Amino acid sequence: MKYLVHMDVNLPVDMPAREAAEIKATEKAYSQQLQRSGKWPEIWRVAGKYANYSILDVDSHDELHEILQNLPLFPYMQISVVPLAKHPSDIK
Amino acid sequence: MKYLVHMDVNLPVDMPAREAAEIKATEKAYSQQLQRSGKWPEIWRVAGKYANYSILDVDSHDELHEILQNLPLFPYMQISVVPLAKHPSDIK
Amino acid sequence: MKYLVHMDVNLPVDMPAREAAEIKATEKAYSQQLQRSGKWPEIWRVAGKYANYSILDVDSHDELHEILQNLPLFPYMQISVVPLAKHPSDIK
Amino acid sequence: MKYLVHMDVNLPVDMPAREAAEIKATEKAYSQQLQRSGKWPEIWRVAGKYANYSILDVDSHDELHEILQNLPLFPYMQISVVPLAKHPSDIK
Amino acid sequence: MKYLVHMDVNLPVDMPAREAAEIKATEKAYSQQLQRSGKWPEIWRVAGKYANYSILDVDSHDELHEILQNLPLFPYMQISVVPLAKHPSDIK
Amino acid sequence: MKYLVHMDVNLPVDMPAREAAEIKATEKAYSQQLQRSGKWPEIWRVAGKYANYSILDVDSHDELHEILQNLPLFPYMQISVVPLAKHPSDIK
Amino acid sequence: MKYLVHMDVNLPVDMPAREAAEIKATEKAYSQQLQRSGKWPEIWRVAGKYANYSILDVDSHDELHEILQNLPLFPYMQISVVPLAKHPSDIK
Amino acid sequence: MKYLVHMDVNLPVDMPAREAAEIKATEKAYSQQLQRSGKWPEIWRVAGKYANYSILDVDSHDELHEILQNLPLFPYMQISVVPLAKHPSDIK
Amino acid sequence: MKYLVHMDVNLPVDMPAREAAEIKATEKAYSQQLQRSGKWPEIWRVAGKYANYSILDVDSHDELHEILQNLPLFPYMQISVVPLAKHPSDIK
Amino acid sequence: MKYLVHMDVNLPVDMPAREAAEIKATEKAYSQQLQRSGKWPEIWRVAGKYANYSILDVDSHDELHEILQNLPLFPYMQISVVPLAKHPSDIK
Repeated sequence: MKYLVHMDVNLPVDMPAREAAEIKATEKAYSQQLQRSGKWPEIWRVAGKYANYSILDVDSHDELHEILQNLPLFPYMQISVVPLAKHPSDIK
Repeated sequence: MKYLVHMDVNLPVDMPAREAAEIKATEKAYSQQLQRSGKWPEIWRVAGKYANYSILDVDSHDELHEILQNLPLFPYMQISVVPLAKHPSDIK
Repeated sequence: MKYLVHMDVNLPVDMPAREAAEIKATEKAYSQQLQRSGKWPEIWRVAGKYANYSILDVDSHDELHEILQNLPLFPYMQISVVPLAKHPSDIK
Repeated sequence: MKYLVHMDVNLPVDMPAREAAEIKATEKAYSQQLQRSGKWPEIWRVAGKYANYSILDVDSHDELHEILQNLPLFPYMQISVVPLAKHPSDIK
Repeated sequence: MKYLVHMDVNLPVDMPAREAAEIKATEKAYSQQLQRSGKWPEIWRVAGKYANYSILDVDSHDELHEILQNLPLFPYMQISVVPLAKHPSDIK
Repeated sequence: MKYLVHMDVNLPVDMPAREAAEIKATEKAYSQQLQRSGKWPEIWRVAGKYANYSILDVDSHDELHEILQNLPLFPYMQISVVPLAKHPSDIK
Repeated sequence: MKYLVHMDVNLPVDMPAREAAEIKATEKAYSQQLQRSGKWPEIWRVAGKYANYSILDVDSHDELHEILQNLPLFPYMQISVVPLAKHPSDIK
Repeated sequence: MKYLVHMDVNLPVDMPAREAAEIKATEKAYSQQLQRSGKWPEIWRVAGKYANYSILDVDSHDELHEILQNLPLFPYMQISVVPLAKHPSDIK
Repeated sequence: MKYLVHMDVNLPVDMPAREAAEIKATEKAYSQQLQRSGKWPEIWRVAGKYANYSILDVDSHDELHEILQNLPLFPYMQISVVPLAKHPSDIK
Repeated sequence: MKYLVHMDVNLPVDMPAREAAEIKATEKAYSQQLQRSGKWPEIWRVAGKYANYSILDVDSHDELHEILQNLPLFPYMQISVVPLAKHPSDIK
């Protein structure tokens, strides 16, 4: 079941560079593990912004929330979620 | 080059049923031809709305606009476009 | 799986009274059948508005969309959908 | 008398972890006591957000406000309230 | 129990003058009967707009909705409702 | 001359408790003196929020502004003002 | 007592040219008579829009509303009103 | 003096094709004459929308308004205007 | 050439009183000198807010920006600018 | 390929003057180098704001994002991006 997820990141401008680097590295590893598992099939950078649009593909709202709230950057993000259904014109 | 495109359809409630059916059929054919060409790789229905989120993959803004303004439903749609860049965490 | 659904109805002011009565009766029957099936466990009127908040409990986004787009009042509604997960403080 | 209440939590990112844990534990106990009393019959997590939608069922606006302003997280929340009336299609 | 109610009227510009006069007269009589009953203690014109702010004082959300949806101008109004509690500084 | 005034309070979460208590006490005294003078005939708590809707009844915009900017909580408030005229249906 | 008034005009695109010309002429005469009386000291066109910002200088909210609701274009306008007080830096 | 102008066109969906073609041709001729005169140095299509962003370069707000309100499509457009000053980093 | 300028001031609540007094005094002197020069013909307080609406009358966008960015309170303001043209009904 | 880019700068009011001067100087040099390369053909100050509208002319969304996220002021900016296509009335 697919969701379009928009994540908008706002790191405090006074976060120490090392702390920022660390949290971003953890976030990257966490995201890539989910991508490899098939639960996070797409992630795109929104051009010009520290934000992304992603597709998540999971079994339930509970699983989606579990994944998102465990994002290392979760406390610094505004997240919005759109549930996606199959489109009648989709050829796949 | 990818774009996230949101299309929100508002057909006039008094459009004759046959005319609506016709325009939807033409729209479907047009969309599926573009999907087969690889220029419209993804289309999802927004659950609960007469709207979709799509990914278009084309060579330029001009080509994107050309495709979108030729949609049979174009006069009845609100469209918004977000240019997508490669995300540094993307494993693909 | 639960969704909070907001439905805001805008019937054209010049719709003939009989047609409006008919469509509302069909809508009511359709809603009550889904309530009895357990898929639409809650429906509340928003005080002061021709609108409702509802809880729908279905198996997938596809099933949700199928139900909503078959609402007789669908062409006259603005619908928004919020996916609901289990809350850690919920005692149920 | 029912109200749909939306609570959106924004804890300061620099709140010490112990203080955050304490306030969340108090909040949870407070909410669960009200759930057991029947005054807070429903609470759902908004998928992807540190926010909830709840149904409160109380005797008056005064009682609602008393309950909400005593939430331990009240100073960190944006709250909005929608009064709910019985829907004519409700089968209960 | 008090509610602040905002009513914003949009009569179709092509409504025949006689029909408009009639509906306004019925609205006025309906409002004044409720004012005399004590259920609609205050009504003010928003300066510069065809809109009012009112205080309604009723026993429940259901009664509030019943009153508002029976307004002759209801199909032509945008209504919003704010539940009001006693303020701790109020001297009354 | 009446104004509907909405006051939305945002005290910094790190304001010392004693300072917050003091400023609220001064605010209360200031408001009650104006209520007794007849210039602030109504004050209601917005259910669920640290906010109020009030009616102020003064001779001019200048007097209104003088009263509002002297509120002890003024630096912590978002205030909005709606000028109210007599409504033609008002029976008073 | 001064008010900043914003008037945004939306004539129906299918209004007959003669009717539009007539209503605009009446509007102009009405506005100019009020300008000459000193009650409407300023009127500016918002560059690029069929809209104006005006200063009205009247004795009360009631007088303001009386003037505005008698504008021939009133049924075709969105109007918003901001009450203006004397600024402490004003040298006049 | 430069202005960034956004023009968003909404032709009625039931405008006869010939009438639409005619008004668009007149608009195009009018725009191109102003482009050649140097007063309208830039015009871009907003990808995916029946809208444009333009730069106008004129001597005064009055001249800007004169040009815009004479656009054949003016009655069908939402226009917004941003006055542009020289940027201190501009190398031209 | 006239502009309607809205200035909304947000001083940090922890700015020392002496610093605030000083910056306000400098702002006042700066504004009054421009008022005397004829470039800032009108300034009004928005009733209930730490904000003003002003008319500035200058030769170009560059001059307007130069004046505004030199306001001592500029770093603490949200400013918006509307270019004003002559209104055809203006009798002056 | 052209993009209209809006950059809105919010430097913390307590950033030391020397640090602010340094970051602005670096930003200016970075912008001017891109202007000279032809990738940033236009930059305008939004009159009255610490913001600019720019045209960027690059080969892809990736290149656009690379340029923007390397802006020294990027952490202090809200950026929005509009992809621009050729307009059919453009004479160039």
